[in-house]
Amino acid sequence: MGRLEFQKGLLFDELTSAPYTLKFWSHDRIQEACVIADKNYHTLADICRLNALTMITFAGSGHIGTSFSAAEIITFMKAISCHEDTKLKEFFNCQFFSSKGHDAPMLYAALHAFGEIADEEIFKFRRAKGLEGHPTIKTSGVITNTGSLGMGISKAKGFVYANRLSKISRKVVVLLGDGELQEGQIWEAMPGAARDALHELVVIVDSNKIQSDTWLSHTLDLGNVKERVESVGWQFLECQGNSIDELGSALEKSISAKKPTWIQANTLKGAGVSFMEKFDPNGKFYKYHSGAPTEHEYEIAYKEILQRVLLNLGDTPTSKEKMEVEAVTYNDLPKHRTNSIVDVYASCLVELSTKRSNLFVMDADLSYDTGTYKFARTHPERYLQCGIAEQDMVSMAGTLALSSWVPIVHSFATFLSMRACEQIFNNATEDSTIVYVGFLAGVLPGMPGVSHQAVTDTIHMASNPNMRLFEPSNKREIELSLLRAVEEFGPSYIRMQSIGVVQSEPQEDLDIGTIWNLGEAAIIICSGVSILEQAQKAVTLLKSAELNVSLLTVFDINKLQNSEALSFISKHSLIVIIENSLPGNLLKAKITDAVLNKSENQSEIYSLGLNSLPICGQNEEVLEFHGLSAYKIYQYILAKAKM
Amino acid sequence: MGRLEFQKGLLFDELTSAPYTLKFWSHDRIQEACVIADKNYHTLADICRLNALTMITFAGSGHIGTSFSAAEIITFMKAISCHEDTKLKEFFNCQFFSSKGHDAPMLYAALHAFGEIADEEIFKFRRAKGLEGHPTIKTSGVITNTGSLGMGISKAKGFVYANRLSKISRKVVVLLGDGELQEGQIWEAMPGAARDALHELVVIVDSNKIQSDTWLSHTLDLGNVKERVESVGWQFLECQGNSIDELGSALEKSISAKKPTWIQANTLKGAGVSFMEKFDPNGKFYKYHSGAPTEHEYEIAYKEILQRVLLNLGDTPTSKEKMEVEAVTYNDLPKHRTNSIVDVYASCLVELSTKRSNLFVMDADLSYDTGTYKFARTHPERYLQCGIAEQDMVSMAGTLALSSWVPIVHSFATFLSMRACEQIFNNATEDSTIVYVGFLAGVLPGMPGVSHQAVTDTIHMASNPNMRLFEPSNKREIELSLLRAVEEFGPSYIRMQSIGVVQSEPQEDLDIGTIWNLGEAAIIICSGVSILEQAQKAVTLLKSAELNVSLLTVFDINKLQNSEALSFISKHSLIVIIENSLPGNLLKAKITDAVLNKSENQSEIYSLGLNSLPICGQNEEVLEFHGLSAYKIYQYILAKAKM
Repeated sequence: MGRLEFQKGLLFDELTSAPYTLKFWSHDRIQEACVIADKNYHTLADICRLNALTMITFAGSGHIGTSFSAAEIITFMKAISCHEDTKLKEFFNCQFFSSKGHDAPMLYAALHAFGEIADEEIFKFRRAKGLEGHPTIKTSGVITNTGSLGMGISKAKGFVYANRLSKISRKVVVLLGDGELQEGQIWEAMPGAARDALHELVVIVDSNKIQSDTWLSHTLDLGNVKERVESVGWQFLECQGNSIDELGSALEKSISAKKPTWIQANTLKGAGVSFMEKFDPNGKFYKYHSGAPTEHEYEIAYKEILQRVLLNLGDTPTSKEKMEVEAVTYNDLPKHRTNSIVDVYASCLVELSTKRSNLFVMDADLSYDTGTYKFARTHPERYLQCGIAEQDMVSMAGTLALSSWVPIVHSFATFLSMRACEQIFNNATEDSTIVYVGFLAGVLPGMPGVSHQAVTDTIHMASNPNMRLFEPSNKREIELSLLRAVEEFGPSYIRMQSIGVVQSEPQEDLDIGTIWNLGEAAIIICSGVSILEQAQKAVTLLKSAELNVSLLTVFDINKLQNSEALSFISKHSLIVIIENSLPGNLLKAKITDAVLNKSENQSEIYSLGLNSLPICGQNEEVLEFHGLSAYKIYQYILAKAKM
Repeated sequence: MGRLEFQKGLLFDELTSAPYTLKFWSHDRIQEACVIADKNYHTLADICRLNALTMITFAGSGHIGTSFSAAEIITFMKAISCHEDTKLKEFFNCQFFSSKGHDAPMLYAALHAFGEIADEEIFKFRRAKGLEGHPTIKTSGVITNTGSLGMGISKAKGFVYANRLSKISRKVVVLLGDGELQEGQIWEAMPGAARDALHELVVIVDSNKIQSDTWLSHTLDLGNVKERVESVGWQFLECQGNSIDELGSALEKSISAKKPTWIQANTLKGAGVSFMEKFDPNGKFYKYHSGAPTEHEYEIAYKEILQRVLLNLGDTPTSKEKMEVEAVTYNDLPKHRTNSIVDVYASCLVELSTKRSNLFVMDADLSYDTGTYKFARTHPERYLQCGIAEQDMVSMAGTLALSSWVPIVHSFATFLSMRACEQIFNNATEDSTIVYVGFLAGVLPGMPGVSHQAVTDTIHMASNPNMRLFEPSNKREIELSLLRAVEEFGPSYIRMQSIGVVQSEPQEDLDIGTIWNLGEAAIIICSGVSILEQAQKAVTLLKSAELNVSLLTVFDINKLQNSEALSFISKHSLIVIIENSLPGNLLKAKITDAVLNKSENQSEIYSLGLNSLPICGQNEEVLEFHGLSAYKIYQYILAKAKM
């Protein structure tokens, strides 16, 4: 473990070491630059860009593109809500939040600039007890939890009604993404605001025209947004969203309206950094939607923004020389995993689909994250990009399945299992063959926070009595999960833990899982790549403590009951099941039932798992907190084995 | 049990007897009337109205208003899909379904008229193994399960994509309700259809302008629907939806379109029966949305429609005399329950809200069914009618709760827990105090079918780790549930079984429940009015078999663990828990844990509950099928007690 040290000694923290220098603007330095006092908001936005860039680079992940496109909107909204503006005094003390949520780095940078977040917090972005990957009310200045798209207008309406009830006259401003407008709840929320003439409500759309994968127009065009908005009784305004002047004028026009206002703010994704503003898809994904920049990218981007900042400050009393920024040195950035299970899944899907011409693949603007882009290239005629519209996708899958196609439906586990919960149930009442594949399942990655760490997905999916559950841990298990899901009649859920993996060779392949190690002292049973990785490390640690334990992954959970694996499991007097979901007793219950049925069995059965929703943080922090790290597993088994 | 007998001996079935005569048009008689051959579709629609009216009256429930408003649309669509029409040959063999689903009686009447449903099926509407309350694919001619609103366009798109994949050129027509347009999924589904130029897709909106409670414009106005539709790239047409000619012209115009078509078909709710067409709310609900007509209403309605039919057939070879309809005699209609628990809840809500000024009540177009209409009258300033927009409602509740209000959110349990699943989760991550109240929970009433019989609601709600669960069985338990839910910090779910109840006096009130009977042979534990009613009857039956058993309802499920009730429960050597949800082991698990913790306890614990999604049928049939009827409970306990 290296350490992080501010040149001015503001922060002193233990972190892994890094090879290059990250720069940072302290709150005092921003004040000193007089940008806020002088209402030099373009420069303020740029300074916030610098801090957001550092934050994301330091955290090893985060959303640059949307943070930068929304920089002027967010900093200006914070400015006029904190400092009374002559023309916009109605926005003083207004309630402002971002519905899309993944622009959190820019939001935090702005909160920091206005003193709501302390300097040291900036370096706790996406870390345990720090600033969460998507905003939550734990952070001062954040007024509601966001991160799952589409809820923003409804939430803003709730604030307006609450203010009216409390006789508080106050504007409520919500920032939406344009990709987010594909969610039905946005349009569901609008008529009510018109009915009740919620003139306090202002929606600003950060219209950067690029969503998670690519151009919005290449994904799912929104139609004529102006007409869509006006036809439900709202005022529609349009402006350049990276221009403070234009934003100000639009906000001014909203003041006298007797109805809610929608400001379509045209922005550039990655605005402020030339190479991030450019995007020519040509079959590629927009590179700066999420993830950390490389060292080279960081340096170039920082330089471009900093030069603009210094130039703009050139004529102010604060000289260029004085504006030398603080520097943070550390020796190592969190590594990105290379051998990703998503790529393995992507290949398995293509392979199976080549053999089976009745498979139809659907995705909701996450083709990179679910690996379906590969299928889209090989079998475009059997691929449907649905946009950020999970309910629509799932209901379409329902009737495709009734028409002798086998839809394989992809999204993040949390959105799929909960946003489309009733649609999945409706399909299940038809008992047709549909494969739901939920990525980002379980506590890892821990950085995006609780809106993305699906842990209740299993229980939601399993509530459909005819749903089969799969949770594979390697290529063979993925292949078999897919094969069984499409071959056997009825719906299935394949739960995918998305992180990269380093795996040793299996010892033995079973019908319902894989034996990774053979030992006599105990057996560890788990599912999915991220827990398997920890369990494998725990096995090694236990070996060094002269305790040999077996390790089994189970991917075909429903078939466990009658499988050959049971007698293998029963041989062990100590059974420890690790579950990466809430409530964490599904697998344990199945194993307990099955093993106890073998009447002479005397095994002791324990389980390790979650007692609460997962915390946000770096993966190691999250595993440690929830007792799921290799070391915690090792300790647990050691203690049980010695009892 | 009396019996049902057709005068012409077409059907012979055992059913409860009735005091008046129901009339019925057989398939042969409809053919004989030549209405189909002569394309006399207005008369056909009226004949279907007659059969739908009889169906609903016989079943004791069903939706007349929307069946009648959609009569011409449904019969005409069936006609042109079954019989090639010169001008509309593109619709021959088209796929047609109703998204709103509660117009099922009219759909069944039309399917029957065209020979897809046999005569005897008409009298199995809303009965076990018969025609379900909302359409399911078990019924010939029904191509997808509907009943929960908003999924229709997505489902239709799925059919279109499937047809294209299979190189089938075929129109897909989906019927929507206008109230249904409040659901976000409708608007989520539209852009994709425009993007892929799904010209095969035709939406018909049965725009009768009255939703569940009252006028749509009094509930949640839709804005300018024409502009909303055109702005996402669809063709918009408008016509009189009770006019076959106008419907035909509109459908014709859809043929040449290169994009999907939306036909706004203006209709009258209850069309065809003068007294059902009239509606002057004046604080009242539209009477013919759901429920069976009285004998008097049936007679008058039947007469009015029949006169028109006979008049229209007057000049045809089929004389008036020949058109005497078959008659069905039976002696008893299923009774409507009078002492409804909904009214009890309504009063408790008003009473509590009068004492507590921070309560805010929300409803999604079910103010009659959830009893919130009473609150709306007494505290209109703290009431929000959200329309059929559950996701919007729940997200608004989230921010109201963050603003020091306590929202009490109402809908049917199935829609609340599943349609707004992710919104409830998002709110739960803020750990604010919100009360969700889900009606129509459990297997009863059994008539609407699986889309309305919420049994997985508990598991979905309980997946939020901080959610408290209440399931009250009488006034005191409702009062305490509400009080604790609003007083204790964090979210709560109050699960309401909606049916009427006849209850004896409790023996003793406990902190977490109610003792209804004291006995030593066993204890029955359950929650909610409908199971309590059966359990009480079972207790009586057991008494006559000289077996005295205790009966306990538990309403505060989370508090059971540390309650005084445990020692009372533990006194019984035989514990039988009855659960009205899936998976049916939540209460059992809690009791088992708690009771087994009392180390010397030797009680045997069993549970009675569901093994599958509930069947549709009359309440008695449903209880019988799932082993939850008084007699089945009695038998079960008798057997266990004798073991």
